[in-house]
Amino acid sequence: MPHILLPEGLPGISSGFAFRPETAKPMRELAHILLHDASTLTPGERELIATFVSTRNDCYFCQTSHGAAAAAHLGNDSKLIEEVQHDFFRAKISDKLKALLVIAGQVQQGGKNVTAESVEQARLHGATDLEIHDTVLIAAAFCMYNRYVDGLATWQPRDPAMYASMGEHLATHGYLTPSVKAPPLEVTK
Amino acid sequence: MPHILLPEGLPGISSGFAFRPETAKPMRELAHILLHDASTLTPGERELIATFVSTRNDCYFCQTSHGAAAAAHLGNDSKLIEEVQHDFFRAKISDKLKALLVIAGQVQQGGKNVTAESVEQARLHGATDLEIHDTVLIAAAFCMYNRYVDGLATWQPRDPAMYASMGEHLATHGYLTPSVKAPPLEVTK
Repeated sequence: MPHILLPEGLPGISSGFAFRPETAKPMRELAHILLHDASTLTPGERELIATFVSTRNDCYFCQTSHGAAAAAHLGNDSKLIEEVQHDFFRAKISDKLKALLVIAGQVQQGGKNVTAESVEQARLHGATDLEIHDTVLIAAAFCMYNRYVDGLATWQPRDPAMYASMGEHLATHGYLTPSVKAPPLEVTK
Repeated sequence: MPHILLPEGLPGISSGFAFRPETAKPMRELAHILLHDASTLTPGERELIATFVSTRNDCYFCQTSHGAAAAAHLGNDSKLIEEVQHDFFRAKISDKLKALLVIAGQVQQGGKNVTAESVEQARLHGATDLEIHDTVLIAAAFCMYNRYVDGLATWQPRDPAMYASMGEHLATHGYLTPSVKAPPLEVTK
């Protein structure tokens, strides 16, 4: 049961967003820029970084919804998503993305954990400063989103079809508008 | 030395914001709503939550700048700020704020660490659902800001006067505009 009276029928972060539309707006915009807007990292690569960090933070809703968005971008290769979540060095992804995932994993543990060596490795594999910046910020931002979703104890249904549909919506439309329908009645604060 | 080529002469998060104005905009807006806009928690109380979480995350720039903003709101009582940072149960703050700091400390460790008991305690001391929501989100957001600042290895000068001036600016004007002057030349990406 959620820790506060959130609108019913909305899974995960959607319920927090409906409860507090003022903070939802910049949080949606940040996700949209980092994951969906034009970038030299593909949307699929960026969703994999988000999925990986959410897995390390043990956030079911975020790892499953962003895993579904990554799958929608990457030919629905669910095996690839699982490998990135749990053993990314074996996954069929570029060496550059592996090096960026190392940095993302360091950020998840704490900002000071990022080493000059891991940044140098990413650069040797072709990562630009902007790609390194965005990797650090995606990882940092998911340390926020994950804590928000679990810190409110939001409803996180175990329904693969719902996440698949959400992933398709996110991959197509991004993050500025809700990816699940609002409930019929809104709970007042 | 920063991990990427950030604009010189800008401390902490300001250098990341100048490097990537697109992501700076929603990050500034979120901080402004959470810490500066109207709320039943005073700006001083909310800055104390931000300072406390940044201290737990060992982020020098954020704990010092938000500690200075809290001090600017709270009669420059630097002893109070230090107590909240390191031993808040002894600090002269309300029982409600102490209960909210317990929740913030749980969020800092991970969203799932928030307990129904700590939420119930906050409610017994008069906290509303919106105040509990905002406490969770302030704590979660500073897990992002702190990781961003340290994950890029930003320049974080040890200059009390600079932080005092920044704290005054933040307490007066909030977070939508820079609190330190831009450097004469901007580094291109």
